[in-house]
Amino acid sequence: MKIENGQSILFTGDSITDCGRAHPVGERAGLGDGYVALVDSLLAACCTDCNIRVRNTGISGNRVIDLEARWQTDILDLEPDWLSVMIGINDVWWQFESPLDPNQVYVERYEATYRKLLDQTRPGLKGLVLMTPYLIEPNLSDPMRERMDAFGSVTQRLSSEYDAVLVDVQAAFDAYLIHRPAQSLSDDRVHPNRAGHMIIAKSLLAAIQFDWSLAEPSVPSDG
Amino acid sequence: MKIENGQSILFTGDSITDCGRAHPVGERAGLGDGYVALVDSLLAACCTDCNIRVRNTGISGNRVIDLEARWQTDILDLEPDWLSVMIGINDVWWQFESPLDPNQVYVERYEATYRKLLDQTRPGLKGLVLMTPYLIEPNLSDPMRERMDAFGSVTQRLSSEYDAVLVDVQAAFDAYLIHRPAQSLSDDRVHPNRAGHMIIAKSLLAAIQFDWSLAEPSVPSDG
Amino acid sequence: MKIENGQSILFTGDSITDCGRAHPVGERAGLGDGYVALVDSLLAACCTDCNIRVRNTGISGNRVIDLEARWQTDILDLEPDWLSVMIGINDVWWQFESPLDPNQVYVERYEATYRKLLDQTRPGLKGLVLMTPYLIEPNLSDPMRERMDAFGSVTQRLSSEYDAVLVDVQAAFDAYLIHRPAQSLSDDRVHPNRAGHMIIAKSLLAAIQFDWSLAEPSVPSDG
Amino acid sequence: MKIENGQSILFTGDSITDCGRAHPVGERAGLGDGYVALVDSLLAACCTDCNIRVRNTGISGNRVIDLEARWQTDILDLEPDWLSVMIGINDVWWQFESPLDPNQVYVERYEATYRKLLDQTRPGLKGLVLMTPYLIEPNLSDPMRERMDAFGSVTQRLSSEYDAVLVDVQAAFDAYLIHRPAQSLSDDRVHPNRAGHMIIAKSLLAAIQFDWSLAEPSVPSDG
Amino acid sequence: MKIENGQSILFTGDSITDCGRAHPVGERAGLGDGYVALVDSLLAACCTDCNIRVRNTGISGNRVIDLEARWQTDILDLEPDWLSVMIGINDVWWQFESPLDPNQVYVERYEATYRKLLDQTRPGLKGLVLMTPYLIEPNLSDPMRERMDAFGSVTQRLSSEYDAVLVDVQAAFDAYLIHRPAQSLSDDRVHPNRAGHMIIAKSLLAAIQFDWSLAEPSVPSDG
Amino acid sequence: MKIENGQSILFTGDSITDCGRAHPVGERAGLGDGYVALVDSLLAACCTDCNIRVRNTGISGNRVIDLEARWQTDILDLEPDWLSVMIGINDVWWQFESPLDPNQVYVERYEATYRKLLDQTRPGLKGLVLMTPYLIEPNLSDPMRERMDAFGSVTQRLSSEYDAVLVDVQAAFDAYLIHRPAQSLSDDRVHPNRAGHMIIAKSLLAAIQFDWSLAEPSVPSDG
Amino acid sequence: MKIENGQSILFTGDSITDCGRAHPVGERAGLGDGYVALVDSLLAACCTDCNIRVRNTGISGNRVIDLEARWQTDILDLEPDWLSVMIGINDVWWQFESPLDPNQVYVERYEATYRKLLDQTRPGLKGLVLMTPYLIEPNLSDPMRERMDAFGSVTQRLSSEYDAVLVDVQAAFDAYLIHRPAQSLSDDRVHPNRAGHMIIAKSLLAAIQFDWSLAEPSVPSDG
Amino acid sequence: MKIENGQSILFTGDSITDCGRAHPVGERAGLGDGYVALVDSLLAACCTDCNIRVRNTGISGNRVIDLEARWQTDILDLEPDWLSVMIGINDVWWQFESPLDPNQVYVERYEATYRKLLDQTRPGLKGLVLMTPYLIEPNLSDPMRERMDAFGSVTQRLSSEYDAVLVDVQAAFDAYLIHRPAQSLSDDRVHPNRAGHMIIAKSLLAAIQFDWSLAEPSVPSDG
Repeated sequence: MKIENGQSILFTGDSITDCGRAHPVGERAGLGDGYVALVDSLLAACCTDCNIRVRNTGISGNRVIDLEARWQTDILDLEPDWLSVMIGINDVWWQFESPLDPNQVYVERYEATYRKLLDQTRPGLKGLVLMTPYLIEPNLSDPMRERMDAFGSVTQRLSSEYDAVLVDVQAAFDAYLIHRPAQSLSDDRVHPNRAGHMIIAKSLLAAIQFDWSLAEPSVPSDG
Repeated sequence: MKIENGQSILFTGDSITDCGRAHPVGERAGLGDGYVALVDSLLAACCTDCNIRVRNTGISGNRVIDLEARWQTDILDLEPDWLSVMIGINDVWWQFESPLDPNQVYVERYEATYRKLLDQTRPGLKGLVLMTPYLIEPNLSDPMRERMDAFGSVTQRLSSEYDAVLVDVQAAFDAYLIHRPAQSLSDDRVHPNRAGHMIIAKSLLAAIQFDWSLAEPSVPSDG
Repeated sequence: MKIENGQSILFTGDSITDCGRAHPVGERAGLGDGYVALVDSLLAACCTDCNIRVRNTGISGNRVIDLEARWQTDILDLEPDWLSVMIGINDVWWQFESPLDPNQVYVERYEATYRKLLDQTRPGLKGLVLMTPYLIEPNLSDPMRERMDAFGSVTQRLSSEYDAVLVDVQAAFDAYLIHRPAQSLSDDRVHPNRAGHMIIAKSLLAAIQFDWSLAEPSVPSDG
Repeated sequence: MKIENGQSILFTGDSITDCGRAHPVGERAGLGDGYVALVDSLLAACCTDCNIRVRNTGISGNRVIDLEARWQTDILDLEPDWLSVMIGINDVWWQFESPLDPNQVYVERYEATYRKLLDQTRPGLKGLVLMTPYLIEPNLSDPMRERMDAFGSVTQRLSSEYDAVLVDVQAAFDAYLIHRPAQSLSDDRVHPNRAGHMIIAKSLLAAIQFDWSLAEPSVPSDG
Repeated sequence: MKIENGQSILFTGDSITDCGRAHPVGERAGLGDGYVALVDSLLAACCTDCNIRVRNTGISGNRVIDLEARWQTDILDLEPDWLSVMIGINDVWWQFESPLDPNQVYVERYEATYRKLLDQTRPGLKGLVLMTPYLIEPNLSDPMRERMDAFGSVTQRLSSEYDAVLVDVQAAFDAYLIHRPAQSLSDDRVHPNRAGHMIIAKSLLAAIQFDWSLAEPSVPSDG
Repeated sequence: MKIENGQSILFTGDSITDCGRAHPVGERAGLGDGYVALVDSLLAACCTDCNIRVRNTGISGNRVIDLEARWQTDILDLEPDWLSVMIGINDVWWQFESPLDPNQVYVERYEATYRKLLDQTRPGLKGLVLMTPYLIEPNLSDPMRERMDAFGSVTQRLSSEYDAVLVDVQAAFDAYLIHRPAQSLSDDRVHPNRAGHMIIAKSLLAAIQFDWSLAEPSVPSDG
Repeated sequence: MKIENGQSILFTGDSITDCGRAHPVGERAGLGDGYVALVDSLLAACCTDCNIRVRNTGISGNRVIDLEARWQTDILDLEPDWLSVMIGINDVWWQFESPLDPNQVYVERYEATYRKLLDQTRPGLKGLVLMTPYLIEPNLSDPMRERMDAFGSVTQRLSSEYDAVLVDVQAAFDAYLIHRPAQSLSDDRVHPNRAGHMIIAKSLLAAIQFDWSLAEPSVPSDG
Repeated sequence: MKIENGQSILFTGDSITDCGRAHPVGERAGLGDGYVALVDSLLAACCTDCNIRVRNTGISGNRVIDLEARWQTDILDLEPDWLSVMIGINDVWWQFESPLDPNQVYVERYEATYRKLLDQTRPGLKGLVLMTPYLIEPNLSDPMRERMDAFGSVTQRLSSEYDAVLVDVQAAFDAYLIHRPAQSLSDDRVHPNRAGHMIIAKSLLAAIQFDWSLAEPSVPSDG
């Protein structure tokens, strides 16, 4: 696994990350009930000798400019070994839901702001995880999906540039959508149910090369 | 996997199974937030072409005699293909917490009642899962652990006799307790936190021979 | 206007109609806060000499088979002059959200049940309004939109057969979607915000040939 | 329409404007549920290519002296293109409900304070809307109606002087009261129900010359 | 005083009488906080040797037809010595607020129903009090006031016919309205504030010839 | 009446005065539901041409030293014409309920503090009302009653010295207790029910020589 | 101790016994927080080899006639070995608080009803405890105390006749009141605080000859 | 008794001491419902001439380092005569529940911090009580029990050094556990039920040599 024993990881982002986490910093029972909590549980359950501290500072509704405003207190001051970021969904959503609001975050501003944050942070980190924003919508020409894919491309490019582990959440959902309708994961194509969060958690664990064979529990005799 | 595509499974038991499930029958979003929900999520996330309907009728505080009282409406009337039962923890707990109460379920009554329920049910099932009651306590000579192990032995014996899949939850927790203290899973050695429920879910999936390799998601490129 | 002075109209359907209406029958301040309330307000505000009694028995989550179960008490017993029905959205949604549930309402069952209800009711009515189910999604090949359109076609056909006023709500939303994104009307493409309900209300008033010129208020002098 | 595409309008005033709007500034879903929200919905529903941003800073119970106290933060700092004000009802009501309170706003103080606010604001606005205070009471010699009409006359005079669009809400209600009793719009002759708010919204849209013919939706075929 | 020592009195009517009384029958601390409670307090405070039991079965929103529906359980079964009734305000209000509702209680139905109730009850009573319905509105040609006065006239006529003590509440409010505006007693001209309820209580005590001189407390020396 | 038309009166004290009044200053509907509200209602109902503004700054649990701490903001800054004070019940109660608490207000401290407050205030007042603390207990040798009477004597003496109107509340309750048990007015001999508050209100109105004959309403004809 | 090992005891009575116990029958954590819970705790803490089952069916506000109405279900059906009853306080209180209510329980009715209940119950019991009603008031000529003492005398006489263990709660409080004021135990002279409940518990334990020397814990060394 | 008449005692510690006490300082009715309240009640009930003021500043979850942070305001500023401290349970618990958290309080830090607090405080006290932390677990080789015993040994050593009264709570529970299972006192082996708190209270009273013979109430005659 890329994260080493004894290291800590901090997750941040928007409502997908937040999921009701504790304040000011979510930890242990306060990680919320989304993919962050599932990652923490799977690490604890599957790898009993992995000592990895997990924290969460996601906030619902955040766009990248909101992360910027709280970057010092909610990320830098916590001095994590690893940082995982998923941001961009609200940046796109806002453009479609409130087109009259002049304060929009289009893709250029997204990239510039994101880059600024990573510049401040990358040198002090042992590792970085970037997760793509996504829309649980299989139609690639859906206008919001198109826009989201553009944001996802930025995330992928930043991932290369900043030597990050990329978690292609959009790709994980796309693989699912070949077999099942989007509505079985989400009402609004953004907020996943429990199964959707499990898909995100699995993608992340795969990306950090969590040794899945360790996760296979010893099979008890079954009569 | 032992459960076939298109079959349904019903989980029943006590608070470990209940976990806030919907009434009268928990299903989909109403499965509660314990191991049943995790099993359902892992099936959905890891095996997109498995169509397995999951339901939950666990009730907090139940002993085997409480299951008996509601067996017709909460199990038989629902006509599941598979049935999974975890019962016995409260039967033991009650003996230690309220020793003055004359209405106790000692191990003979436990076995007799359990056997009676299985006699009524086994013929109509495509499959049966029996899960051992447990105490998250590594000391084998702790009085409550000793008593719980006696109940666990009954579950194991019934599992053989009724051609059931055995999930040895106690064994799964014991494996964990080699590395970590019990308090990291539970305050009261009975009700697990999220990680503890994940251990139960994993044990169950292993026992039904869920093909874990399918669960391994395609690894996205990580730059 | 097709509805005559002194006549009453009863609205029924699912959550789009319900919108928090009073029980057992919504009326006056108890009409909820969706399109039914807007229709009532516009009638009162624009046509001060129109005496039209408006009632509402929509229930959230209803499919056509749920309407059937309560048709006697919630529609026939109220003896309305006009009846307006919007049903079908949950019939389709259920197929995508819970594909494992065996109790589905596919298009044939939808039509047969709907027809049965109308057979019982049409003779006693002075007028009938049928509103198409809809998805606020411009992509005609989206799988749920395709399915919804099939249900919409049934509604259109029944409208002709039963001499009803058709309100093509899908068409009204499609006209809007040429100019604005779907997200500006609804998070989940089904439940509209206030502007979306106004679009439904306007479509209905147009379909019953509400004389819009009367609606134009006398312009006060503006200095 | 007098308000041009791309311009913003801010509504302020008392409880009639407030109606449960969000704080500190109501916008989109936070506009409350009174006439402001109806205006916003009708603009969105009837004119899909009108981009007009609507905001609301009304506060229940406000008299003109309360507006004065918060004018800088709640109006000037928001830099709207258009401003719409409805104030005066509480100024009159207070005189009748609490005649012993020495801090009254009689008509001279009302005019002087209102004038002072408009002097500060008019130059920076692209347009101004002044709405008359009203009493839903047809008897012109009712003492409170007489007093309210005096305040309404001030509003009309200020409207001329400051080149504002006048919305004569009292006149709109008077037209309604020819046909229907006041109690069908309001319990206390001040706070309107949904139909009363629709009357206010219509008056305002007429006054700004909203092209009502655009509002006529394309009529779908009705069998 | 007309009510003799040791006798009981039951008050019934609508929201003016109800005022949050206890159910099924209000008594002592459960008399609500309207005129009934004030009458009870004044009797206790001013006449320490008067033993008069006071009960209350008013229900908010009641019209005379609602009283009829519960007359047996809420009046006859309680076997009071004296009965006091105030009814009619909602009968009138309903006509103005919901003119489209076909189930109206016009003055003939009011009188007929009221008469029927009194026929059943008067013989068993030691005394009867009838209180006029009222509108706190000084303008005698206000349409609702005119209608209310017609109902008040019926009450006065019934009072004569059935040998009742008449409490002319309308007259008591009219005397007040010579000096003070209606808004100082009520927002909606129907539900009085504390001062308005005191006016009703005083009228009633005067009508039953409560010996007010007894009420004058012995004046303590004041230095 | 001693209070002249157009003057204001401020009531202050402990829970007997407070009774749930509004903050920071109780007025009109915010006077609470104790004797202060009854005085206000009786003034309004019985004397329609008396313009007397009533305010309330009582706070539950206050002893005279708590009044001292808030005297500037809650009494002096409000600049009333008349001031009415009832204080001392908690000073005594505390001695009996918490005898171990060293911070007690015995009678000397009570008098000294009270005197200090009156020295600051009397010159600026048009009139002063002092109300005796009381215990609703007829046994004069009850230890708490004895103590309370000592505090009452102080109040009487201060009343003479500061030219105040004395309201001997204890005497008013004593007169009642000749005929009825204490429990019919209060559970704990301190907090009165509605009848008890009416007794206090009456005593106060008598003491200020409220012309009770004016209070006699014109008797309507009673058939 | 009079109660033998392995026997059960049921407490019943009014609010002093109830204290928020669980329904339908209070046991273990559901004994409420009054003297019953303290007795249970002291038995458990002081005598670790005493196996005595404690239950509670007290109900707030009960008079002896309310016990009578529920005697079968709440006492007889539970088949206790020992029964402890404390009743009578509300019977007296009601006479003083609501003297106008005709349904009073005077001392003769109290004795007759109490006797009837004991006749039904005594033969089936292994032991009976009768606790005197009380008033925490040292003045023996206080009218309510006199009345309560009369009820207490009945309890004492019944205790002799029915071979019961008498707990003279009044005597226990009287002993306390020699040293401390009544207010330090109760606001209303009836409902005790924690210290008052401890006094009741101690009296009861003394009366059943609980061996207090056993209660003395082994003294740990204190350095 | 070691605490003398007229002296005060302050209890502080963690959730065992806190038990819902009032803030900022618990006293009288605000002592919470744990052992502190029981000690206070037993003192009041058993020794009516003991005047000992009891206060409580325990806070749930506190470790010794949390006490340190609030020592000035919550202990020193209150200037108690006696101080009683129970701390250490959370220091141990945290090590087992959150082993990944780097901010642990191991036994050396516990002792050093505790010593620092006692150094600041002991000189000003008339007496000091130190209570051992405990685990309600009879197995001495249970890992958490072993750790707790190490903390208990520190408490014992500090008790000797600082001339404190030692309350060996662990020993008191161990004595109980010879006869009864741990589950009859606590679900999680830490938070006691009522009986467990009584055991703590008794140990403390024994340690301060509360003269238990005084506690024996005079036995009333029992027929």
